[in-house]
Amino acid sequence: MFAIDDVIFQEPLRELQDLSLSHQFLIATAESCTGGLLSALLTHRPGSSGFFLGGVNAYANSVKSRILGVPEEDLKRFGAVSTEVASRMAAGVQHLFQSHFSCSITGVAGPGGGTPDKPVGLVCFGWSTPEGTTFQASQLSGSREEIRAASCHVALSGLLQRVKAYAHKEVL
Amino acid sequence: MFAIDDVIFQEPLRELQDLSLSHQFLIATAESCTGGLLSALLTHRPGSSGFFLGGVNAYANSVKSRILGVPEEDLKRFGAVSTEVASRMAAGVQHLFQSHFSCSITGVAGPGGGTPDKPVGLVCFGWSTPEGTTFQASQLSGSREEIRAASCHVALSGLLQRVKAYAHKEVL
Repeated sequence: MFAIDDVIFQEPLRELQDLSLSHQFLIATAESCTGGLLSALLTHRPGSSGFFLGGVNAYANSVKSRILGVPEEDLKRFGAVSTEVASRMAAGVQHLFQSHFSCSITGVAGPGGGTPDKPVGLVCFGWSTPEGTTFQASQLSGSREEIRAASCHVALSGLLQRVKAYAHKEVL
Repeated sequence: MFAIDDVIFQEPLRELQDLSLSHQFLIATAESCTGGLLSALLTHRPGSSGFFLGGVNAYANSVKSRILGVPEEDLKRFGAVSTEVASRMAAGVQHLFQSHFSCSITGVAGPGGGTPDKPVGLVCFGWSTPEGTTFQASQLSGSREEIRAASCHVALSGLLQRVKAYAHKEVL
């Protein structure tokens, strides 16, 4: 079960929105397995249009390459669920939307589609800031919607952490 | 409260997925006020990657014009919440993603942002099929999340109706 107004999302969403609005930071998303859930969360609060530009739900690989500029070679070599592709998706949407920050999610939400190398629950994340792109891979568990919800939580926490760190530097 | 697995969505989602997979129809979305919720719904069921290409969450007007190709003149003349812009968003994402069908949502989810002409709850929809683009404006009510959920319901029902009608013609 995934509820947009789940309490675990409310505090990070509030903090991210307040911080972004006060620093005039603009944010964009690129999602695969979560299919727009992170973007839906970021627009849950009134006033979110002040910092959230939008996102690309790049479910098909053709969208990852044609719209977000992920090299087809990376998709072939590393697979759609890889930190390489997650990084390219984050950097691609940051560039396309001209945002300060961006966040990407690509993973195996299941219940099918898992392999020994890339089991169900493997989710890769990318975050682009004005200083560059960083990434992470996490092994999550649960049902399809539980994995999608947990993915949003990791993505959102990582985004907030980076926005906070950058805002802190800006002040110094 | 908006839950992805709300029972009202399950039957149209199942029907849309079955029909699209059996006819090899590809679908894309363009969302503003719902910010990715429709796309998240369309990817709720396992196997959705067989028909859903992805979508653009065009929250900012700059994304509507730069990525989806909505003419800036239309945004100025009719406003972002208009059947003209909804139609352009649907046709834009159909073209960009090379999908057979697409669906767009742009509205005033509230609680702020309403005007006498465009009150909170006014939501415009566009649907593109291989035969052209049609649109609708609806006055919805409730909280922000209730309006967003109702918007997804209207969009999904309209999409299913058009996919059904087209599939029926294909068979004749």
